[in-house]
Amino acid sequence: MRMIDLIEKKREGYPLTAEEIRFFVEGVTKESIPDYQISALLMAIYFQGMNEEETALLTSYMANSGETVDLRPIPGKKVDKHSTGGVGDKISLIVGPLVASMGVPVAKMSGRGLGHTGGTLDKLESIPGFRISLSRDEFIQTVKEVGLSIVGQTGNLVPADKKLYALRDVTATVESIPLIASSVMSKKLASGADAILLDVKVGSGAFMKKEEDARRLAEWMVKIGNRLGKKTVAVLTNMDQPLGFEVGNGNEIKEVIQVLKGETIPDLREISLTLASHMAVLGEAFTDLEQARLSVEKSLDTGEALEYFRRFIEAQGGDPSIIEDPEKLPTASYHTEVFAERNGYITKINAEKVGLTAMRLGAGREKKEDQIDHAAGVTLRKKIGNPVRRGEPLGILHSNRKPDRETLALFQSSFQIEEKSPEPSPFVYGVIE
Amino acid sequence: MRMIDLIEKKREGYPLTAEEIRFFVEGVTKESIPDYQISALLMAIYFQGMNEEETALLTSYMANSGETVDLRPIPGKKVDKHSTGGVGDKISLIVGPLVASMGVPVAKMSGRGLGHTGGTLDKLESIPGFRISLSRDEFIQTVKEVGLSIVGQTGNLVPADKKLYALRDVTATVESIPLIASSVMSKKLASGADAILLDVKVGSGAFMKKEEDARRLAEWMVKIGNRLGKKTVAVLTNMDQPLGFEVGNGNEIKEVIQVLKGETIPDLREISLTLASHMAVLGEAFTDLEQARLSVEKSLDTGEALEYFRRFIEAQGGDPSIIEDPEKLPTASYHTEVFAERNGYITKINAEKVGLTAMRLGAGREKKEDQIDHAAGVTLRKKIGNPVRRGEPLGILHSNRKPDRETLALFQSSFQIEEKSPEPSPFVYGVIE
Repeated sequence: MRMIDLIEKKREGYPLTAEEIRFFVEGVTKESIPDYQISALLMAIYFQGMNEEETALLTSYMANSGETVDLRPIPGKKVDKHSTGGVGDKISLIVGPLVASMGVPVAKMSGRGLGHTGGTLDKLESIPGFRISLSRDEFIQTVKEVGLSIVGQTGNLVPADKKLYALRDVTATVESIPLIASSVMSKKLASGADAILLDVKVGSGAFMKKEEDARRLAEWMVKIGNRLGKKTVAVLTNMDQPLGFEVGNGNEIKEVIQVLKGETIPDLREISLTLASHMAVLGEAFTDLEQARLSVEKSLDTGEALEYFRRFIEAQGGDPSIIEDPEKLPTASYHTEVFAERNGYITKINAEKVGLTAMRLGAGREKKEDQIDHAAGVTLRKKIGNPVRRGEPLGILHSNRKPDRETLALFQSSFQIEEKSPEPSPFVYGVIE
Repeated sequence: MRMIDLIEKKREGYPLTAEEIRFFVEGVTKESIPDYQISALLMAIYFQGMNEEETALLTSYMANSGETVDLRPIPGKKVDKHSTGGVGDKISLIVGPLVASMGVPVAKMSGRGLGHTGGTLDKLESIPGFRISLSRDEFIQTVKEVGLSIVGQTGNLVPADKKLYALRDVTATVESIPLIASSVMSKKLASGADAILLDVKVGSGAFMKKEEDARRLAEWMVKIGNRLGKKTVAVLTNMDQPLGFEVGNGNEIKEVIQVLKGETIPDLREISLTLASHMAVLGEAFTDLEQARLSVEKSLDTGEALEYFRRFIEAQGGDPSIIEDPEKLPTASYHTEVFAERNGYITKINAEKVGLTAMRLGAGREKKEDQIDHAAGVTLRKKIGNPVRRGEPLGILHSNRKPDRETLALFQSSFQIEEKSPEPSPFVYGVIE
């Protein structure tokens, strides 16, 4: 088999066979196919697409290109969650304890954030003492005992995706539905879950700006997951502005605790309850979604989920007293308010700019080697639809160095203020299953 | 400027600016752009194309990516010829002396053949003593004195094309009109000619199988050439079967001599006269094409062109007595006839298979390092339209080792014999200027 024939076939719009896709994935993994041929095929796939069968095959061969995690020692249906990524996205840390409190084990391997703000692991590491590196056995044991564990990825999982993703990132071939779907789903498959819940973000702050694009991607991933024997559900959620009010690391943990204490932060609460209900059904704790929703809501409002969060922190070496005393989380030396320059209503908040602001304050990484400042971040004082007067604070920047003018201006320019209040948009656009 | 932005822009179908194209060509030449990004852009160009301006810019920056040849010391308009490649294509060796005999200087740098049979240089090297390596000064001097010189390419001409062509060849991005056009035309521009005649082959044995595709490519190249200030004319010529009767090296030189002696080998004669007439007009020896045609024909029939060929051989160290005594050219030890297996008319001759037959006999290179056997080759006994009887020879294979059965079968399978005589097709399909 010759790689050039595969490129030409795909270039002409023909589907690749199972054998050809295996040859490709093996060649990528073993590095026997040169990068310039891989990127030519990726661009041909960008233009010609892949059908459902090809995408499922690609996903499956990728999932098996390296080590895989065996979660079978944990009794019950294990449900994994994946978010396509957003600013202020702390949903996993709310949903995890909620789902665990329904008796559905949550065994999550997470990646580091290379976006504007930290990833789930970075947020957890702002809790004093918290360990994200557990051995495979400790990980399994924690899930068994506490119902929930979140750790950093260990082992050589899905090396084909690492290689392909790195190339796609520099060859303008990221935005391809079959390539995105196979990348996401191969990692979920290799992580050993029995069922998968996908949080597909839609909106100005998301990778998918338009609902129809997000829906197409979601449908594709659901089909692939189900085809490969993993029950998969996708929820389309709003990412027109940062989630909640906190963007950063330590401050996001504070907000997680607020939600788990039953405080109503509308978008976080609604999206978390929706995702957790679906995960509870996927985990077979309920057959009926409404029933699941009622129980999940109860767990949130009675503090049951918070108890799971506490035990989870404790089990991974963290200091659980942060729950009663969130001031024990890292605190910054500077808290700089940024003010509105006119009266009106907030009509838009550019999530990317807010994320960049947080990164400039130290909350994210520009390069892989960068250190995160867990105390840095942003607190929004206003969200879309809120009325605002000139001189009122739009938000507060937390940092350990005085923020420069550019950062202040960047944050201020994140907000669009107009005379008329905007039409409200839903937190959840739909569910695909 | 970032290469990924160029890839994305082209992927989305936008034209690249002059600055962007220059950045690309410089990056390719200096090897500062990694191959995987180059091949991604090439594939994006394959799908999205390039407009006339982009193609002209690409051609021009490529032409200037390395050394260029200065033919200004030679008085008069220098006309270069390019063929898109065919089997048995010895036209340059007939047209060269013809055009020179019109007083138009021909200074041609030629490449080695990496096809099934040798290139023009390999054919010339079958003449005892002939030198294809002249210094730049000797080259210029020979053209000045004899009116004609053909040498191997020296110097680092168009390095960007070398790099791009090598990548296109392994990434299925050869078949792109703007990429083909810029590759061909950049080399012609760097070679210093004032005007360019393109012999664009059409048919089963050509790169372009369909007349409309060949026409599109030809129109594109003519536009680019004229846009860049070089008067350019393209002639679409028939390549449904090998040109003439001889395919190889030494035997092709014999056939060149036959044509220059005035023998009528219909396709070779007609195509050579057409190309030479246009070149004579491009070289400003005539303003009128019919006038040029009459003179060129006369030069062929009176032996004037043959005299130029003789002087050209002599000037480059070759033995001109091969003209009177062509048996001094390399002769093979085996001459194996291959016979027709049924009665009928020849309706098709697969030029590629004939070329492959010649290569298997030793007349071409499989790998760059391979040595050519100048005595090896094929003589056709039949051409399309000829009647044939079972047992009559279709052709003769010349070789220094007994040809194997596969080679004989390959040659035999090149011919299609049917009951009805085929419709004749023209030697020349059209002229684009």
